[in-house]
Amino acid sequence: MRAVVCAHGALEVADLPDPRPGRGQLVLDVRRCGICGSDLHAKDHGDALDEVMVELGYHDSVRPDRPTVLGHELCGEVVERGRGAGRGPRVGDLVVSFPLVRAGGRGGDVHLVGLSPQAPGGYAEQVVVEAAMSLVVPNGLPAEVAVLTEPLAVAHHAVRRSEVAARDVAVVLGCGPVGLAVVSLLKARGVRAVVASDPSPGRRALATRCGADLVVDPTAGSPWDVAAEGQRWVRSAPQLLELAVSAMEGLRRLPGWVPLYRAAEALGAAEVRRPVVFECVGVPGMLEHVLSAAPVQSRVVVVGVCMGEDTLRPTMAVNKELDLRFVLGYTPLELRDSLHLLAEGRVDLSPLVTGTVGLAGVAAAFEALRDPEAHAKVLVDPASDARLP
Amino acid sequence: MRAVVCAHGALEVADLPDPRPGRGQLVLDVRRCGICGSDLHAKDHGDALDEVMVELGYHDSVRPDRPTVLGHELCGEVVERGRGAGRGPRVGDLVVSFPLVRAGGRGGDVHLVGLSPQAPGGYAEQVVVEAAMSLVVPNGLPAEVAVLTEPLAVAHHAVRRSEVAARDVAVVLGCGPVGLAVVSLLKARGVRAVVASDPSPGRRALATRCGADLVVDPTAGSPWDVAAEGQRWVRSAPQLLELAVSAMEGLRRLPGWVPLYRAAEALGAAEVRRPVVFECVGVPGMLEHVLSAAPVQSRVVVVGVCMGEDTLRPTMAVNKELDLRFVLGYTPLELRDSLHLLAEGRVDLSPLVTGTVGLAGVAAAFEALRDPEAHAKVLVDPASDARLP
Repeated sequence: MRAVVCAHGALEVADLPDPRPGRGQLVLDVRRCGICGSDLHAKDHGDALDEVMVELGYHDSVRPDRPTVLGHELCGEVVERGRGAGRGPRVGDLVVSFPLVRAGGRGGDVHLVGLSPQAPGGYAEQVVVEAAMSLVVPNGLPAEVAVLTEPLAVAHHAVRRSEVAARDVAVVLGCGPVGLAVVSLLKARGVRAVVASDPSPGRRALATRCGADLVVDPTAGSPWDVAAEGQRWVRSAPQLLELAVSAMEGLRRLPGWVPLYRAAEALGAAEVRRPVVFECVGVPGMLEHVLSAAPVQSRVVVVGVCMGEDTLRPTMAVNKELDLRFVLGYTPLELRDSLHLLAEGRVDLSPLVTGTVGLAGVAAAFEALRDPEAHAKVLVDPASDARLP
Repeated sequence: MRAVVCAHGALEVADLPDPRPGRGQLVLDVRRCGICGSDLHAKDHGDALDEVMVELGYHDSVRPDRPTVLGHELCGEVVERGRGAGRGPRVGDLVVSFPLVRAGGRGGDVHLVGLSPQAPGGYAEQVVVEAAMSLVVPNGLPAEVAVLTEPLAVAHHAVRRSEVAARDVAVVLGCGPVGLAVVSLLKARGVRAVVASDPSPGRRALATRCGADLVVDPTAGSPWDVAAEGQRWVRSAPQLLELAVSAMEGLRRLPGWVPLYRAAEALGAAEVRRPVVFECVGVPGMLEHVLSAAPVQSRVVVVGVCMGEDTLRPTMAVNKELDLRFVLGYTPLELRDSLHLLAEGRVDLSPLVTGTVGLAGVAAAFEALRDPEAHAKVLVDPASDARLP
């Protein structure tokens, strides 16, 4: 079969042996595979990624000197079932798969599909997946939509971990595919106000199409100022100190004996309101920027992956009592939820897709994705000869 | 009155005018004032603290060139009430006060008692506090115990923000007064296992007296290895990947149609267990150490205040999906809860107190507190002439 191999920072189409399913596995004809920001990282910063993975005990991640077929946003048609695939999907089913596979089938070590040489990914005509990790695509959803299940699951996981409520205001920093999926999902969940920030006009336009209530160019204005308008957020120490004292003075002014619920009310009125922030940029300095600019007690979900070391001031985070919740990936159930959100039409991520290429077009697509004006999500269709215009 | 003034990094006893209460305020004869780690920071790193406070809009914090009476862990006897002190404490009452005060009384700006030249603190014979922020000490609790309300409130706030449950395992890094108070409180709340880590044998002995189930010398062994024993924590990427796949394989093996609750059970069995970590050290490099060493999905409450900049690897935090919850201070209601926890004998912080000094002994006590073997919490009693031996 034909596949795109990543080695030494370059992507080239090569002929590889056709894959065979191990016990409990399926072979898919890849119908679509999304190009993810992690794939760009893996190509350009493979060594830095590998260093962290080795520390975490994983010795088989993609690295410049290990030729690897990338691609973990998988949607394909079952063409072969290994023994023991059991009640799994049948031949001819269109499936979306959680990108983990056992090398050699049942009993083998688990590897990251498309991010390890032990588990070739979806930039290929065929890919091996686990039957137990595969979901049949419902409702006749076409492959070019179903393939967005994976990025939606990343956003779904981040949004769940944020514990955002409908009454909250959310600030989404960075409108790459994941930031845009977060915006869509927040609106689908009924979050009152979603402010999206990105320096690219094209990306801001996409954020609006995804449902953002307000979009901000952070090079021209402060997303924090825009988002804070009309909010009872605490943005300075004097405000916070005043709030604490006036709450207690308010309690003291209540007549007679103060029942506890009255006290709770008085203090509730002085409760600090806070935004929920999604950091979807992931470049050095971004964490410190958020610490410095975010209101007191902000809950910050860190979705963007900043490679290497980063510097910040813990004193600022302490003084503001910030939460930093680092997130990665999603659970199998979140992947299933995401597929159904798409299949039921509750979330529409189609604005994200800015192009589709064949295998020979992947290398140029990686380059094109450096320009946020031009592209957001590019899909690979191994049956196509398309290249980006 | 006599007071200890901090200026240009030195502490000296000086004669200051007797304080007068503004509207809504009280004057206390200080019975005890605790020496806090923040006071040591304020004396030695006043400029760094001030820089952050100015960014947060507070322009009156302690700084080397601004002579300030430190001391915010306050317990004293009411000797004078300002007009409008209302139903507040009466003359003769022993009170504990939340260390915020309005400069000049009602309507004035709020300042940090003992951490601002605008609000002289408790290293003095007398101190001005707000009636609304003062709590009468119940149950005849003596001043030398009631004064521990403040450090207990810091721990109480950190423990509440941690959302720790009785079934959790907690790891407390650093057994300074706050770390020790966290240990005491976790055990008072019935947390199953509390592992405390400190390089000082003296501090580890105090941790044991405060109820720690296990103590570890981090220079000789890993608190993580000790704490992880017998726990189903995930400490490597391969473990995590295996967990995800085997959960889904388990689901597939359930016979027939799988009701959702069975699915939830199967996945629950594979749920990641995680420790709750309290970082009470606050030195550069400590955050990165925790990120690198903590199990997957640890919830880390950052209580220690690391001055200046710090460097960490966001990729490690992302790959482990860590939570960093930065905490500071406490709410008025948490202060009240803490006073009652002490008054009802539910928490005993007396092991922390390693000495009591008069005003003339404060400067030497600051020096002595640099040695963790010698001291943990030193109290100031302005009526005493005591010095540390």
